[in-house]
Amino acid sequence: MKAIMIIGDGMADRPLRELGGKTPLEVAKKPSLNLVAETGVCGIMDPIAPGVPPGSDTAHLALLGYDVFKVYAGRGAFEALGSGVDIQLGDVAFRCNFATVDDNYTVVDRRAGRIDTQDASQLASDLKKVSLKGARVMFRNTVQHRAILALRGAGLSARVSDSDPQKVGKRVSEVYPLDDTDEAKKTARIVKELLQRFHEILESHPVNEERKKKGLPPANIILCRGAGTLPQLPTLPHQYGIQAAAINAVPLVGGVCKAAGMSLLNVHGATGTYDTDVKAKANAAIQAVKSYDLVLVHVKATDIASHDGKVQKKIGMIERIDEMVGHIVKNVDMNETFVAVTADHTTSLLTGEHEGDPVPVAITGPGVRTDDIREFSERACARGGLGRIRGVDLMPTLMNLLGKVKKFGA
Amino acid sequence: MKAIMIIGDGMADRPLRELGGKTPLEVAKKPSLNLVAETGVCGIMDPIAPGVPPGSDTAHLALLGYDVFKVYAGRGAFEALGSGVDIQLGDVAFRCNFATVDDNYTVVDRRAGRIDTQDASQLASDLKKVSLKGARVMFRNTVQHRAILALRGAGLSARVSDSDPQKVGKRVSEVYPLDDTDEAKKTARIVKELLQRFHEILESHPVNEERKKKGLPPANIILCRGAGTLPQLPTLPHQYGIQAAAINAVPLVGGVCKAAGMSLLNVHGATGTYDTDVKAKANAAIQAVKSYDLVLVHVKATDIASHDGKVQKKIGMIERIDEMVGHIVKNVDMNETFVAVTADHTTSLLTGEHEGDPVPVAITGPGVRTDDIREFSERACARGGLGRIRGVDLMPTLMNLLGKVKKFGA
Repeated sequence: MKAIMIIGDGMADRPLRELGGKTPLEVAKKPSLNLVAETGVCGIMDPIAPGVPPGSDTAHLALLGYDVFKVYAGRGAFEALGSGVDIQLGDVAFRCNFATVDDNYTVVDRRAGRIDTQDASQLASDLKKVSLKGARVMFRNTVQHRAILALRGAGLSARVSDSDPQKVGKRVSEVYPLDDTDEAKKTARIVKELLQRFHEILESHPVNEERKKKGLPPANIILCRGAGTLPQLPTLPHQYGIQAAAINAVPLVGGVCKAAGMSLLNVHGATGTYDTDVKAKANAAIQAVKSYDLVLVHVKATDIASHDGKVQKKIGMIERIDEMVGHIVKNVDMNETFVAVTADHTTSLLTGEHEGDPVPVAITGPGVRTDDIREFSERACARGGLGRIRGVDLMPTLMNLLGKVKKFGA
Repeated sequence: MKAIMIIGDGMADRPLRELGGKTPLEVAKKPSLNLVAETGVCGIMDPIAPGVPPGSDTAHLALLGYDVFKVYAGRGAFEALGSGVDIQLGDVAFRCNFATVDDNYTVVDRRAGRIDTQDASQLASDLKKVSLKGARVMFRNTVQHRAILALRGAGLSARVSDSDPQKVGKRVSEVYPLDDTDEAKKTARIVKELLQRFHEILESHPVNEERKKKGLPPANIILCRGAGTLPQLPTLPHQYGIQAAAINAVPLVGGVCKAAGMSLLNVHGATGTYDTDVKAKANAAIQAVKSYDLVLVHVKATDIASHDGKVQKKIGMIERIDEMVGHIVKNVDMNETFVAVTADHTTSLLTGEHEGDPVPVAITGPGVRTDDIREFSERACARGGLGRIRGVDLMPTLMNLLGKVKKFGA
């Protein structure tokens, strides 16, 4: 028995006046999602807890079966891990941006004009050379303005504030310790010094001189946020004796999956944006489930559309996820495979934010206790046979169907 | 106000192809169970947590309102308590089998040819005389090959492994400590020495000489498993100010009930197998509820049928539980009595194992918030007014109806 878990990022929503009081899921044409609902058992799920808006990292941790209230220790380490930085227990990692500040340290552009990856790589190659007393410094740019900073050494802490003010027109924030420990104080001191050194290197860097000549904003500062350490998670292989893989193009989600002991499968054409190749992702899942017990397929752009307030784009992406699901269920042996479909959280087209509303969930496969729900949507699934579960319950529920959960007691 | 809780062991199941996609509960004729559903409030219940397959001991602990993640410390002590061994806090108890090994300590028969109780008693009377330095030894045979070993003394621990390899053809396992404490090491040493002494006594015992002459396998070894200590439970009488009794023929379940402060009522004809006298159990419940506030009635054989893969036997046992329920509701004052019906876990006829799927639950009695469910089954109850609850919620729910739960707050 195998399982495929399909996650539409921020796919759930609230009823919209402009859709006649319906949600994007309710108006989208989604024959395959509905088929999963009709042949399966449905429910609603609070990814973390009722009313709590999840982040992408905490939502995925929960869907993989972890108690986020116990294990979560910041975004940075997952982002680093998902970006291919070889992060270890105890390292403190940050998500960073190449950005532009004026002489007064006021942020002019949080993404340095969405600097291209080539320029950022050249700048990063010099930042990597910086060494400091007290910690080993690891710096790596990923795509465009995005980068990862990680510190390794004794006595570090993730309890430090962001330098990224998250708004244009604000001054760069001072990094300060978030608690009274020596570790937090030391880490804040190191980050402050490091960011100053980075700033000095960037200010006078030939790449930035060249950018100015071209009229491009210089990438003259590194903004950091989301300090995090890796939690010591019991991996899925360890807990359930399974092999698991994830198909996903978002480093943060990939990092969570990797921390859970999943293999990250690269799929050509999976972009994490509107133009992602859902057919390629489906094919990759169909292949992967031959050698893995559990395959997670994550599609990001439903969330992007919600953040951007683009109703039709969101409906369109739901229909493409539906295509993907259709291709998967037609091409795997459904006598041997459980398919679960859900969202990692609600992202409201109206507020443009992650919301704490529950998400729909449907599981089809051999022997599930089917109900009379025939539509995959927020409101239809609320009447389903799973009732209302938590995100943290989904993985044991699936693993139980696979016969992988050990009996508790005698 | 009184309450009767009726538990069909492993009664819940998954839809089966050979039953046209229905579960045994769905196809069984069960007018009385349906009446409880129709006149009551229904729901589904995760005995422990979604996806977690419960044991009989943990499931019953949960149904009696205990948080098993906090209190559970192994099977042995409950088995001992339910077998009439006077177990105390701190004692380490094991479930044992009289078994047959060859000269190489390879298990030939895990039950010594299902040795009769008389032979086992004679053997046990000599094993009881063994004394050891470091702990007081208590040994008692129960029915056929079954026996209990308990150790009493300072500095003992239940963190030791089983000697029972649980399979014919395997060698007897060495007992080793499961953690690094002196207590575990000491206990393992004592058990090893004790089992060796038992083996020596049994090897040369006249009862076994006689058995060999008759061509019966000699009961020449004691296999032990499931080391456990008694958790310090707040009893039901203490928590709720009630008197409670259990009607049940399974020592493990009886032990849990006794640990919860319930009286164990012996019912002539209650066997724990297919031939149990459900009418006698019903009559005992009808009598008991006159003097006790809460009476638990447990029927085992639905679980046995599931483990054995016997579909029709399971359906038949459900119909006999239905008879029992019918006799009870007709003969108690339903203006004064709540009747709850449920299962302690799902046991799948297909896998033959306890599964982590939820179980149906229905509660009828004066003033319950009835819903529109008219059938007692896994899927019908999923749409009921109780929603999806946990096993640990059932006892407070019942005790609340009896007016026995203290207000929390002012």
